[in-house]
Amino acid sequence: MNNKIDELYSSKTTHSSELLSFMYGSLMVRLTKDYKDLNEINKKSEEMGFDIGFRLLDDVLDELGKNIHTTNPINTLLLTLLKNFLGINGELSQNSDKEFHYVFKNNPLALFVELPEHLKELCYSNIICGMIRGLLENANFKVECNFDKDKTRGDDINDIKIVIVEIMEERFIDDEEN
Amino acid sequence: MNNKIDELYSSKTTHSSELLSFMYGSLMVRLTKDYKDLNEINKKSEEMGFDIGFRLLDDVLDELGKNIHTTNPINTLLLTLLKNFLGINGELSQNSDKEFHYVFKNNPLALFVELPEHLKELCYSNIICGMIRGLLENANFKVECNFDKDKTRGDDINDIKIVIVEIMEERFIDDEEN
Repeated sequence: MNNKIDELYSSKTTHSSELLSFMYGSLMVRLTKDYKDLNEINKKSEEMGFDIGFRLLDDVLDELGKNIHTTNPINTLLLTLLKNFLGINGELSQNSDKEFHYVFKNNPLALFVELPEHLKELCYSNIICGMIRGLLENANFKVECNFDKDKTRGDDINDIKIVIVEIMEERFIDDEEN
Repeated sequence: MNNKIDELYSSKTTHSSELLSFMYGSLMVRLTKDYKDLNEINKKSEEMGFDIGFRLLDDVLDELGKNIHTTNPINTLLLTLLKNFLGINGELSQNSDKEFHYVFKNNPLALFVELPEHLKELCYSNIICGMIRGLLENANFKVECNFDKDKTRGDDINDIKIVIVEIMEERFIDDEEN
Protein backbone atom coordinates (compact mmCIF):
# COMPACT_ATOMS: atom_id res chain seq x y z
CA MET A 1 0.00 0.00 0.00
CA ASN A 2 2.58 2.53 1.14
CA ASN A 3 -0.03 5.12 1.99
CA LYS A 4 2.52 7.83 2.69
CA ILE A 5 1.52 10.52 5.11
CA ASP A 6 3.02 13.89 4.41
CA GLU A 7 4.94 15.55 7.14
CA LEU A 8 2.23 17.06 9.31
CA TYR A 9 4.55 19.25 11.21
CA SER A 10 7.11 21.65 9.95
CA SER A 11 10.48 21.38 11.60
CA LYS A 12 10.16 22.74 15.11
CA THR A 13 12.38 23.37 18.02
CA THR A 14 13.04 20.39 20.22
CA HIS A 15 10.92 20.44 23.34
CA SER A 16 13.33 18.40 25.27
CA SER A 17 13.47 19.74 28.80
CA GLU A 18 11.07 17.05 30.01
CA LEU A 19 12.94 14.52 27.96
CA LEU A 20 16.29 15.64 29.33
CA SER A 21 14.91 15.47 32.84
CA PHE A 22 13.52 11.96 32.32
CA MET A 23 16.68 10.75 30.63
CA TYR A 24 18.79 12.10 33.46
CA GLY A 25 16.41 10.40 35.86
CA SER A 26 17.11 7.07 34.15
CA LEU A 27 20.82 7.67 34.52
CA MET A 28 20.47 8.47 38.22
CA VAL A 29 18.34 5.40 38.84
CA ARG A 30 21.11 3.30 37.29
CA LEU A 31 23.75 4.97 39.41
CA THR A 32 21.79 4.43 42.61
CA LYS A 33 21.47 0.75 41.67
CA ASP A 34 25.19 0.42 40.95
CA TYR A 35 26.56 2.28 43.96
CA LYS A 36 25.29 2.22 47.50
CA ASP A 37 27.61 4.96 48.73
CA LEU A 38 26.05 8.35 48.00
CA ASN A 39 29.47 10.03 47.88
CA GLU A 40 30.45 7.61 45.18
CA ILE A 41 27.31 8.48 43.18
CA ASN A 42 27.95 12.20 43.59
CA LYS A 43 31.49 11.63 42.34
CA LYS A 44 30.42 9.53 39.36
CA SER A 45 27.76 11.98 38.18
CA GLU A 46 30.24 14.83 38.52
CA GLU A 47 32.77 12.92 36.42
CA MET A 48 30.19 12.20 33.73
CA GLY A 49 29.37 15.90 33.68
CA PHE A 50 33.06 16.73 33.38
CA ASP A 51 33.36 14.63 30.22
CA ILE A 52 30.23 16.19 28.75
CA GLY A 53 31.25 19.76 29.59
CA PHE A 54 34.75 19.20 28.24
CA ARG A 55 33.32 18.04 24.93
CA LEU A 56 30.71 20.81 24.82
CA LEU A 57 33.31 23.60 24.60
CA ASP A 58 33.40 23.54 20.80
CA ASP A 59 29.63 23.79 20.59
CA VAL A 60 29.57 26.57 23.15
CA LEU A 61 32.18 28.51 21.17
CA ASP A 62 30.21 27.92 17.96
CA GLU A 63 27.09 29.20 19.64
CA LEU A 64 28.95 32.31 20.76
CA GLY A 65 30.42 33.05 17.36
CA LYS A 66 32.02 36.43 17.66
CA ASN A 67 30.11 37.31 20.78
CA ILE A 68 32.66 35.99 23.23
CA HIS A 69 33.50 38.63 25.79
CA THR A 70 37.23 38.18 25.93
CA THR A 71 37.46 40.52 28.88
CA ASN A 72 35.41 38.11 30.92
CA PRO A 73 35.43 34.73 29.20
CA ILE A 74 34.36 32.80 32.29
CA ASN A 75 31.09 34.69 32.56
CA THR A 76 30.40 34.24 28.87
CA LEU A 77 31.14 30.53 28.92
CA LEU A 78 29.12 29.94 32.09
CA LEU A 79 26.09 31.83 30.83
CA THR A 80 26.12 30.12 27.46
CA LEU A 81 26.35 26.67 29.01
CA LEU A 82 23.76 27.30 31.69
CA LYS A 83 21.24 29.37 29.75
CA ASN A 84 21.58 28.27 26.15
CA PHE A 85 22.51 24.64 26.58
CA LEU A 86 20.89 23.66 29.84
CA GLY A 87 18.06 26.17 29.58
CA ILE A 88 18.47 27.31 33.18
CA ASN A 89 17.28 30.85 33.76
CA GLY A 90 19.24 32.27 36.61
CA GLU A 91 21.54 35.06 37.62
CA LEU A 92 25.29 35.03 37.64
CA SER A 93 27.07 37.10 40.24
CA GLN A 94 30.68 37.48 41.18
CA ASN A 95 31.78 37.79 44.80
CA SER A 96 35.45 38.26 44.07
CA ASP A 97 37.93 37.77 41.24
CA LYS A 98 37.76 34.08 41.90
CA GLU A 99 34.28 33.31 43.13
CA PHE A 100 31.12 33.15 41.05
CA HIS A 101 27.58 32.16 41.99
CA TYR A 102 24.77 31.11 39.71
CA VAL A 103 21.42 31.36 41.47
CA PHE A 104 18.27 29.92 39.94
CA LYS A 105 14.82 28.69 40.83
CA ASN A 106 14.01 25.93 38.39
CA ASN A 107 16.38 23.09 37.74
CA PRO A 108 15.50 21.40 34.44
CA LEU A 109 17.17 18.14 35.48
CA ALA A 110 15.10 17.87 38.63
CA LEU A 111 11.69 18.88 37.28
CA PHE A 112 9.84 15.97 38.80
CA VAL A 113 12.25 14.90 41.50
CA GLU A 114 11.56 14.31 45.15
CA LEU A 115 14.32 12.44 46.87
CA PRO A 116 13.32 9.62 49.19
CA GLU A 117 14.64 9.75 52.74
CA HIS A 118 17.61 7.43 52.18
CA LEU A 119 18.82 9.57 49.28
CA LYS A 120 18.55 12.93 51.04
CA GLU A 121 22.29 13.44 50.85
CA LEU A 122 22.42 12.76 47.14
CA CYS A 123 23.58 15.76 45.17
CA TYR A 124 21.10 14.89 42.45
CA SER A 125 22.21 17.42 39.86
CA ASN A 126 25.93 17.21 40.46
CA ILE A 127 26.37 16.49 36.76
CA ILE A 128 25.84 20.24 36.20
CA CYS A 129 28.83 21.03 38.43
CA GLY A 130 30.84 18.51 36.47
CA MET A 131 29.81 20.11 33.19
CA ILE A 132 30.90 23.51 34.41
CA ARG A 133 34.24 22.13 35.60
CA GLY A 134 34.82 20.26 32.33
CA LEU A 135 33.85 23.17 30.10
CA LEU A 136 36.07 25.61 31.95
CA GLU A 137 38.98 23.19 32.23
CA ASN A 138 38.92 22.75 28.46
CA ALA A 139 39.13 26.54 28.26
CA ASN A 140 42.15 26.51 30.61
CA PHE A 141 40.41 27.47 33.83
CA LYS A 142 40.70 24.94 36.62
CA VAL A 143 37.75 25.44 38.96
CA GLU A 144 36.01 23.86 41.89
CA CYS A 145 32.27 23.76 41.62
CA ASN A 146 29.44 22.61 43.85
CA PHE A 147 25.88 23.31 44.90
CA ASP A 148 25.91 25.77 47.80
CA LYS A 149 22.13 25.49 47.95
CA ASP A 150 19.99 22.85 46.32
CA LYS A 151 16.19 22.76 46.26
CA THR A 152 16.14 18.98 45.90
CA ARG A 153 17.84 18.90 49.31
CA GLY A 154 15.38 21.29 50.90
CA ASP A 155 16.90 24.70 50.25
CA ASP A 156 14.66 27.53 49.06
CA ILE A 157 16.79 28.20 45.98
CA ASN A 158 19.54 26.65 43.87
CA ASP A 159 22.98 28.22 44.13
CA ILE A 160 25.99 26.85 42.30
CA LYS A 161 29.33 28.12 43.52
CA ILE A 162 32.31 28.24 41.15
CA VAL A 163 35.79 29.01 42.46
CA ILE A 164 38.76 29.49 40.15
CA VAL A 165 41.73 27.59 41.51
CA GLU A 166 44.16 27.93 38.63
CA ILE A 167 44.43 29.60 35.25
CA MET A 168 46.35 27.11 33.20
CA GLU A 169 48.82 27.93 30.47
CA GLU A 170 47.41 28.19 26.98
CA ARG A 171 47.32 24.81 25.39
CA PHE A 172 45.65 25.79 22.14
CA ILE A 173 47.18 24.01 19.20
CA ASP A 174 47.01 25.49 15.75
CA ASP A 175 44.96 23.00 13.75
CA GLU A 176 46.85 23.82 10.58
CA GLU A 177 50.09 22.63 12.08
CA ASN A 178 48.75 19.17 12.71
CA MET B 1 31.74 43.22 46.67
CA ASN B 2 28.86 41.42 45.06
CA ASN B 3 29.63 42.87 41.66
CA LYS B 4 26.42 41.61 40.09
CA ILE B 5 26.51 40.97 36.37
CA ASP B 6 23.25 41.56 34.61
CA GLU B 7 21.81 38.78 32.57
CA LEU B 8 23.71 39.02 29.32
CA TYR B 9 21.39 36.75 27.50
CA SER B 10 17.69 36.93 27.17
CA SER B 11 15.91 33.67 27.74
CA LYS B 12 16.57 31.50 24.72
CA THR B 13 15.58 28.13 23.50
CA THR B 14 17.56 25.26 24.91
CA HIS B 15 20.19 24.06 22.48
CA SER B 16 20.24 20.65 23.91
CA SER B 17 20.60 18.18 21.09
CA GLU B 18 24.34 17.86 21.74
CA LEU B 19 23.65 17.74 25.44
CA LEU B 20 20.98 15.09 25.03
CA SER B 21 23.34 13.08 22.84
CA PHE B 22 26.17 13.33 25.37
CA MET B 23 23.92 12.54 28.28
CA TYR B 24 22.55 9.51 26.50
CA GLY B 25 26.13 8.52 25.75
CA SER B 26 26.90 8.57 29.49
CA LEU B 27 23.92 6.34 30.12
CA MET B 28 25.01 3.87 27.44
CA VAL B 29 28.55 3.77 28.78
CA ARG B 30 27.13 2.86 32.18
CA LEU B 31 24.94 0.15 30.70
CA THR B 32 27.83 -1.39 28.78
CA LYS B 33 29.81 -1.44 32.02
CA ASP B 34 26.97 -3.09 33.93
CA TYR B 35 25.94 -5.71 31.41
CA LYS B 36 28.18 -7.77 29.16
CA ASP B 37 25.32 -9.30 27.19
CA LEU B 38 24.30 -6.94 24.40
CA ASN B 39 20.76 -8.34 24.31
CA GLU B 40 20.48 -7.43 27.96
CA ILE B 41 21.63 -3.87 27.24
CA ASN B 42 19.19 -3.55 24.35
CA LYS B 43 16.43 -4.73 26.65
CA LYS B 44 17.39 -2.36 29.47
CA SER B 45 17.57 0.72 27.25
CA GLU B 46 14.22 -0.19 25.72
CA GLU B 47 12.69 -0.49 29.19
CA MET B 48 14.09 2.88 30.24
CA GLY B 49 12.58 4.35 27.11
CA PHE B 50 9.26 2.74 27.90
CA ASP B 51 9.13 4.46 31.29
CA ILE B 52 10.06 7.80 29.73
CA GLY B 53 7.57 7.51 26.87
CA PHE B 54 4.81 6.44 29.23
CA ARG B 55 5.39 9.52 31.35
CA LEU B 56 5.72 11.82 28.34
CA LEU B 57 2.13 11.26 27.18
CA ASP B 58 0.77 14.15 29.23
CA ASP B 59 3.38 16.52 27.84
CA VAL B 60 2.73 15.31 24.31
CA LEU B 61 -1.01 15.90 24.74
CA ASP B 62 -0.32 19.35 26.19
CA GLU B 63 1.86 20.15 23.21
CA LEU B 64 -0.89 19.06 20.86
CA GLY B 65 -3.58 21.05 22.57
CA LYS B 66 -6.60 20.84 20.34
CA ASN B 67 -4.57 19.70 17.35
CA ILE B 68 -4.87 16.01 18.00
CA HIS B 69 -6.09 14.24 14.90
CA THR B 70 -8.59 11.90 16.48
CA THR B 71 -9.06 10.10 13.19
CA ASN B 72 -5.45 9.04 13.31
CA PRO B 73 -4.16 9.45 16.85
CA ILE B 74 -1.18 7.14 16.38
CA ASN B 75 0.28 9.28 13.62
CA THR B 76 -0.24 12.42 15.65
CA LEU B 77 1.32 10.97 18.77
CA LEU B 78 4.27 9.50 16.89
CA LEU B 79 5.04 12.68 15.00
CA THR B 80 4.80 14.83 18.10
CA LEU B 81 7.12 12.59 20.06
CA LEU B 82 9.65 12.14 17.29
CA LYS B 83 9.67 15.62 15.80
CA ASN B 84 8.78 17.95 18.63
CA PHE B 85 10.29 16.11 21.58
CA LEU B 86 13.21 14.23 20.09
CA GLY B 87 13.81 16.72 17.28
CA ILE B 88 14.10 13.99 14.66
CA ASN B 89 13.18 15.15 11.18
CA GLY B 90 11.92 12.17 9.27
CA GLU B 91 8.99 10.86 7.38
CA LEU B 92 6.19 8.69 8.69
CA SER B 93 4.60 6.22 6.33
CA GLN B 94 2.02 3.54 6.80
CA ASN B 95 2.27 0.17 5.05
CA SER B 96 -0.99 -1.21 6.36
CA ASP B 97 -3.55 -0.54 9.07
CA LYS B 98 -1.10 -1.94 11.56
CA GLU B 99 2.37 -1.13 10.31
CA PHE B 100 4.09 2.23 10.40
CA HIS B 101 7.63 3.24 9.47
CA TYR B 102 9.53 6.32 10.48
CA VAL B 103 12.50 6.92 8.21
CA PHE B 104 15.13 9.52 9.04
CA LYS B 105 18.72 10.45 8.35
CA ASN B 106 20.03 12.07 11.50
CA ASN B 107 19.65 10.49 14.87
CA PRO B 108 20.10 13.11 17.59
CA LEU B 109 21.05 10.47 20.17
CA ALA B 110 23.87 9.12 18.03
CA LEU B 111 25.36 12.36 16.76
CA PHE B 112 28.92 11.44 17.59
CA VAL B 113 28.66 7.70 17.89
CA GLU B 114 30.79 5.09 16.18
CA LEU B 115 30.39 1.68 17.71
CA PRO B 116 33.54 -0.32 18.37
CA GLU B 117 33.71 -3.81 16.86
CA HIS B 118 32.63 -5.67 20.01
CA LEU B 119 29.49 -3.51 20.25
CA LYS B 120 28.40 -3.82 16.62
CA GLU B 121 25.25 -5.68 17.63
CA LEU B 122 24.24 -3.03 20.14
CA CYS B 123 20.99 -1.35 19.24
CA TYR B 124 22.40 1.94 20.45
CA SER B 125 19.23 4.01 20.21
CA ASN B 126 16.79 1.37 21.36
CA ILE B 127 15.58 3.83 24.00
CA ILE B 128 13.65 5.56 21.19
CA CYS B 129 11.75 2.33 20.44
CA GLY B 130 10.99 2.06 24.13
CA MET B 131 9.71 5.64 24.23
CA ILE B 132 7.39 4.96 21.31
CA ARG B 133 6.11 1.79 22.93
CA GLY B 134 5.59 3.51 26.30
CA LEU B 135 3.88 6.56 24.85
CA LEU B 136 1.48 4.51 22.74
CA GLU B 137 0.79 2.00 25.50
CA ASN B 138 -0.25 4.84 27.79
CA ALA B 139 -2.61 5.90 25.00
CA ASN B 140 -4.03 2.35 24.85
CA PHE B 141 -2.15 1.08 21.82
CA LYS B 142 0.05 -1.93 22.45
CA VAL B 143 2.78 -1.96 19.82
CA GLU B 144 6.01 -3.67 18.92
CA CYS B 145 8.75 -1.36 17.84
CA ASN B 146 12.29 -1.81 16.60
CA PHE B 147 14.92 -0.44 14.26
CA ASP B 148 14.50 -2.05 10.84
CA LYS B 149 17.55 -0.11 9.67
CA ASP B 150 20.08 1.66 11.83
CA LYS B 151 22.93 3.86 10.62
CA THR B 152 24.99 3.15 13.74
CA ARG B 153 24.96 -0.48 12.60
CA GLY B 154 26.00 0.29 9.05
CA ASP B 155 22.70 0.84 7.25
CA ASP B 156 22.38 3.81 4.92
CA ILE B 157 19.32 5.19 6.72
CA ASN B 158 17.40 4.86 9.97
CA ASP B 159 14.04 3.13 9.81
CA ILE B 160 11.94 2.49 12.90
CA LYS B 161 9.14 -0.01 12.42
CA ILE B 162 6.03 0.17 14.60
CA VAL B 163 3.44 -2.60 14.52
CA ILE B 164 0.15 -2.36 16.38
CA VAL B 165 -0.52 -5.61 18.20
CA GLU B 166 -3.54 -4.65 20.28
CA ILE B 167 -5.86 -1.74 20.84
CA MET B 168 -6.60 -1.89 24.51
CA GLU B 169 -9.84 -0.97 26.17
CA GLU B 170 -10.15 2.58 27.33
CA ARG B 171 -8.66 2.90 30.75
CA PHE B 172 -9.13 6.61 31.21
CA ILE B 173 -10.19 7.43 34.72
CA ASP B 174 -12.04 10.60 35.47
CA ASP B 175 -9.70 12.60 37.69
CA GLU B 176 -12.60 14.17 39.54
CA GLU B 177 -13.78 10.84 40.80
CA ASN B 178 -10.51 10.11 42.56
